[in-house]
Amino acid sequence: MFKKILIANRGEIAMRIIRTCRELGVNTVAVYSTADTESLHVKYADEAICIGAPSGKDSYLNVSRIIAAAEITNADAIHPGYGFLAENADFAEVCQSSGIKFIGPSAEMIRKMGDKITAKESMKIAQVPVVPGSDGLVEDVSEAKRLAAQIGLPVIIKATAGGGGKGMRIVHKMDDLEKAFVTAQSEAEKSFGNSGVYIEKFVEEPRHVEIQVMGDQYGNVFHLGERDCTVQRRHQKLIEESPSPVMNEALRDKMGDAAVNAAKAIQYEGAGTVEFLVDKYMNFYFMEMNTRIQVEHPVTEEVYDVDLIRDQILVAAGETLAERCYIRKGHSIECRINAEDPDYGFRPSPGVVQVFHTPGGHGVRVETHAYAGYKIPPYYDSMIAKLIVHAADRTQAIERMVRALDEFIIEGIKTTIPFHKRVMQSEVFRSGNFDTSFLEKTKL
Amino acid sequence: MFKKILIANRGEIAMRIIRTCRELGVNTVAVYSTADTESLHVKYADEAICIGAPSGKDSYLNVSRIIAAAEITNADAIHPGYGFLAENADFAEVCQSSGIKFIGPSAEMIRKMGDKITAKESMKIAQVPVVPGSDGLVEDVSEAKRLAAQIGLPVIIKATAGGGGKGMRIVHKMDDLEKAFVTAQSEAEKSFGNSGVYIEKFVEEPRHVEIQVMGDQYGNVFHLGERDCTVQRRHQKLIEESPSPVMNEALRDKMGDAAVNAAKAIQYEGAGTVEFLVDKYMNFYFMEMNTRIQVEHPVTEEVYDVDLIRDQILVAAGETLAERCYIRKGHSIECRINAEDPDYGFRPSPGVVQVFHTPGGHGVRVETHAYAGYKIPPYYDSMIAKLIVHAADRTQAIERMVRALDEFIIEGIKTTIPFHKRVMQSEVFRSGNFDTSFLEKTKL
Repeated sequence: MFKKILIANRGEIAMRIIRTCRELGVNTVAVYSTADTESLHVKYADEAICIGAPSGKDSYLNVSRIIAAAEITNADAIHPGYGFLAENADFAEVCQSSGIKFIGPSAEMIRKMGDKITAKESMKIAQVPVVPGSDGLVEDVSEAKRLAAQIGLPVIIKATAGGGGKGMRIVHKMDDLEKAFVTAQSEAEKSFGNSGVYIEKFVEEPRHVEIQVMGDQYGNVFHLGERDCTVQRRHQKLIEESPSPVMNEALRDKMGDAAVNAAKAIQYEGAGTVEFLVDKYMNFYFMEMNTRIQVEHPVTEEVYDVDLIRDQILVAAGETLAERCYIRKGHSIECRINAEDPDYGFRPSPGVVQVFHTPGGHGVRVETHAYAGYKIPPYYDSMIAKLIVHAADRTQAIERMVRALDEFIIEGIKTTIPFHKRVMQSEVFRSGNFDTSFLEKTKL
Repeated sequence: MFKKILIANRGEIAMRIIRTCRELGVNTVAVYSTADTESLHVKYADEAICIGAPSGKDSYLNVSRIIAAAEITNADAIHPGYGFLAENADFAEVCQSSGIKFIGPSAEMIRKMGDKITAKESMKIAQVPVVPGSDGLVEDVSEAKRLAAQIGLPVIIKATAGGGGKGMRIVHKMDDLEKAFVTAQSEAEKSFGNSGVYIEKFVEEPRHVEIQVMGDQYGNVFHLGERDCTVQRRHQKLIEESPSPVMNEALRDKMGDAAVNAAKAIQYEGAGTVEFLVDKYMNFYFMEMNTRIQVEHPVTEEVYDVDLIRDQILVAAGETLAERCYIRKGHSIECRINAEDPDYGFRPSPGVVQVFHTPGGHGVRVETHAYAGYKIPPYYDSMIAKLIVHAADRTQAIERMVRALDEFIIEGIKTTIPFHKRVMQSEVFRSGNFDTSFLEKTKL
C-alpha cells in the first residue's frame, strides 16, 4: 500500500480523496494555488504545498510543480481527481518516469480514449454500438454534405479534441450545413488547437446514461450499473441519479456488457465511465469513455455500497477485484450545488459564504470543501457542494432530496439550491420521462 | 396516513422526526419551551407552539399544554421521541381519550414494561431468561440477607421504579448488605416516590446488548438484530454499535427470538428495545424493555437500511409489517457528542456554539439540532449531536469514525469529541474485548 498520496486537485474532490486516504491510514499531501490558502483540503491534508498563482497553468495544471511537490514530500502516488490533469496522458507518463504511481489508467489507455475518433474505432472493433457517422475526420464541406445525405438529417458536427459543447453544431437542414461546419472547425481550432471535426447522426430525444466500470491489473473488469445524467444545462450535468428511471434489467445487462467490453478492449485499469446516449426507442450508442473518477460517482457508491476512491487506490496498489460482488440497492440522486444565480442565467456568484448549514439525517450525504467564512475564489468551477441522497426507491429519494434541500442553508452567495427544489417538485422530473432538452424546454 | 404530527420533544430527536415527516408528506407541529425559541426544530417544523417555561414540568412534561397544542393545531397524532413523556402511560392514555394517536405502544404495554418487577414476571412466563433474584419486592434487610445467601454474592439491589443508576447498589460482602439496602430504599423514595427495591444476582463482566424489535397492529413482530452499548460512563451510554463485536449468528438468533417472544407476550406494537446483559460465558439475561425509540436507533437503521421513525409512524397508521424482510449489512457505530468537558469529569459545558462544521462524505451521518450561533440551554440533557458511521466491517467503521471525528469542528464550548477520539484509538476498544467497566478501568 502507498505511504503517502499527493492529491493533484482542489475543492470537494480533494476533500473526498483525503477522507478515503485517512480511512486507509495513508498520509496525504495537498497542493494549492495562492487563491486556495483557506481551502478546506489544505487544512485537512497531513501536508500542504503551495504550487503557484491562481491560474490553472501556474498551479493545478502545472505538471513540473506538482511533480516537484510530490518529490519534495516523498509521495509515492498521485491521485488526479477529475478535471485538471486527470485525463492528461503526458502527466501520467511523467508520473511513471518519476517513479510515482499515477492513480488511474496508463498514458496509453488515456490516449486511446482521449481522441474521440480513435475511441470510436476501438469501440467498433469491440462491437460496442456507436452512432452512425463518418469514419474519422471530415476534411471539407462537400464530404460533410455527402455524409449527411447518406446518414440522414439531423446530424451533429463534433470536434475530435472536444468536450463541454465546444466545437459542436447540430444541423437540421442541409442549407445550414456549410456554416455549421466552418464554425465548428474554427471553434475547435480556437478551443483545442486542433480543427479536426467529424460527423454523426444526431440522436433525437436522447438520455445521457453512463456505465461505471472498474478494472484491476489482472484483466478483471466489472460494471456497477448506470448513472442517468440527462438533466443538463448547456451540456453541463446538474443532477444525476442511479438507477436510471428508464432502465430495465435486460437493457442494463446489455449496456453493462458493452461497457465491460469497451474497457477490456483497451485492457482498462482503474475507475472509468462509458458514456452512452439512449434514444427514445431504447437504442444505445457509445459517446465517449472518461478515464477518471467522475463528479457524480457518489450515486453509484450509494446504490452499490462501495467506496470507488478506495477501490481506485487499492487497484493502483495491485489489489485484485476478482472476489468482488456488487449488489444494487435502492435509489440515489445527486444535486450539484453551484455558486451561481439560477434566476439570472446561472451567472457565477463568487464571494464569502456567511452561513453554511448542511443537511443531515438518514440517507443524506454531503461532499463539500466550503464552510462558514469561506471565500469562493472566482478562478475555478463554481461547484461548492454535492448533495447526495439514498432511499428505498426513486419517489422516496426525491422526497428525501426535497427535505435535504430545504435544510441546506447557504447565505452570502447565490446558489443553485432553489433551482434544484424546482426540478425535484416538477411533474416532468418526477415522471422520469424526459430527455436532455428537459431544462431548455421547461425553463425551471 | 396522519395529516399532522405534533412532536412532543426537542433537540436532535425532534429534528429527526420532522425529517421523516417531511419525507412522508406529513405536516409537523413543534412545541418548545421559552429556552428553546432559537432551536432548530422550531425553525424546521411547519408550525411551532411555545408551551411554557424552561423546566420540564412547565413544558415538555406538561401533558395538558401539549394536548392543548395538539388540539389548537388540529394534529391527529403525537410522536413523543425518547425521554420526557415517551414512556408515560398516563400521557398515552390522555392522547387516546383526546382522539389523538399516540405513536408508540398502548398505555397498558407501557405500564407492563415500566414496572421492573411486573416486567420480569412477564418475561419469566414468556420463557425469556432473567437474572436470578427475588420474586418481587424485598420487604426488609433480613429477607434481603436470606435471598443474597441463596442467590450467591455479588448481588445488586435495584429500585422497582428506577433507572439511570438511581436507587441501585452492588453488594460484594454480606457485611455491606444492610447499609446498601437501606440507602437504596431511601434513594428510591427520594428519586421516584417509591421505596420498593428488589434483589438480583450481579452479573459480572457484563456487556450491554439490546435487541431492536418492531411490531404492528396485527401481531407481526420482527427483530432487527442487536446494538452493543457496553461503552458507558455511570450507566450512561456514550458509544453504541451494531453488530456487537461479541455476537455470533447462533446467539443472535437466540437473543432475537427471546426479544420477539418478550414483545409478543404483551402484544407489543411499534418500536421497542429489549435490553439484555451478556456475561462472559455468553449467557444473556433480560434487563428491561424500553417501549420507545432509543437514542442509538440509527446504528440499526444503518446496518438494516431502514427508517425506524418512518416504520413507527406507518405502524401507528395501521400499516402491516407482514412483508418485511430485514437484511443486515456492514457495521455501524454512533458517538454521542455531548456539551461536556471530558477532561474535567464530563462537567456540562453549556454556552454559545461559535463554529459548527459537521463531517461529511461516504458513510457518515450527523443528527443534530445545533448550528453556528446556537446557545445551548442549561436545562436539558447535554447531547448536541450524534455522529454515526457505516462501513463494510468494524475496523473500517472505526477508521471512518476517527476521520469523521477529526473533521468535526465545534468551537465555543467543550465537547466529548476528544474523548471519543481516545476511545476509537484505544487498543481495548479496537479489540472488542471489554465490559461495562471499560471506561472506569481505562480512564480514557
